[in-house]
Amino acid sequence: MTEISWMKAIEFASPHPYVLVTTVDRGGAPNIIGISWWTIVSWSPQMMLISVGHGKKTSENLEQVKEFVVNFPSEGQAKGAWICGTKTGAKIDKFKETGFKPMSAKIVKPPLIEGAVLAYECKVTSEVTTGDHRLYIADVVAIHGTEGAPRHLMSMRYDTMVSLDHTGYINVSLPYK
Amino acid sequence: MTEISWMKAIEFASPHPYVLVTTVDRGGAPNIIGISWWTIVSWSPQMMLISVGHGKKTSENLEQVKEFVVNFPSEGQAKGAWICGTKTGAKIDKFKETGFKPMSAKIVKPPLIEGAVLAYECKVTSEVTTGDHRLYIADVVAIHGTEGAPRHLMSMRYDTMVSLDHTGYINVSLPYK
Repeated sequence: MTEISWMKAIEFASPHPYVLVTTVDRGGAPNIIGISWWTIVSWSPQMMLISVGHGKKTSENLEQVKEFVVNFPSEGQAKGAWICGTKTGAKIDKFKETGFKPMSAKIVKPPLIEGAVLAYECKVTSEVTTGDHRLYIADVVAIHGTEGAPRHLMSMRYDTMVSLDHTGYINVSLPYK
Repeated sequence: MTEISWMKAIEFASPHPYVLVTTVDRGGAPNIIGISWWTIVSWSPQMMLISVGHGKKTSENLEQVKEFVVNFPSEGQAKGAWICGTKTGAKIDKFKETGFKPMSAKIVKPPLIEGAVLAYECKVTSEVTTGDHRLYIADVVAIHGTEGAPRHLMSMRYDTMVSLDHTGYINVSLPYK
């Protein structure tokens, strides 16, 4: 091994599961952001976290309503997922722009995205600032999935999305920059 | 979408990049643990985190020396990676057991694993307990990579490892339970 750059490392570490995080403001207006920086962090209780850049519409919403949903978009949702990862919710209504349909969650206020492969309903339990991002650490309070639609999107180098399954099938290669 | 179980969700969320985290105790003895729960958390400064179960040898080492290396094992290292993910460093010397060769890092005390695809040297800046795990949030202080060996291991449902690249090539399917 030799020393390499941060961006080269991001290429080497690809692919990474890409998710769409939904939030709402105090008036109930929803937003969606596309991120690759998330992980499960506890088996029992069931917990996960997301890392969100400062100044995002999502951060603003999370200051107001401490709940979010982590949706795994299906391969057919690549175009909408691309919009969510590249445009700001401060200026557009992302549900309208993508055509995604919101579905009521079981417990939290932010909506699920209809047709997603998987959706974790989360309630924030603590927050930690990490450099230019903020961690939202949360209890998973309900989980939803779509049987028979297991293929979801993975981010390659944060500039292309692919979907794949355990047989290595790849369906989408869409630059999202 | 319908409600699904935690374990079914883990299947739907697969695959996830699998990493080997190296640490040392205060005497300098190294250990390796295999984990899937990690993420980058800041662009600038460059930061990442890992989530480690309580009572692990790795947790004990991190109490003593607040540094770790996140190594991405190559497809040829699947067997050793399997050992690191299933046996405890409290009982065996994992470098000896796997045949992995330690390499001196540039800045931190824990070693790199020779032949890994990618290795991030990290210094812990804060820690947060999340249920049955603990987050180690860290500055990335150096990065190493192996040019021409971009294929690394991905965890499927935390019970099988595969390696793949952006063409969907899959080389290894090794149950690691």
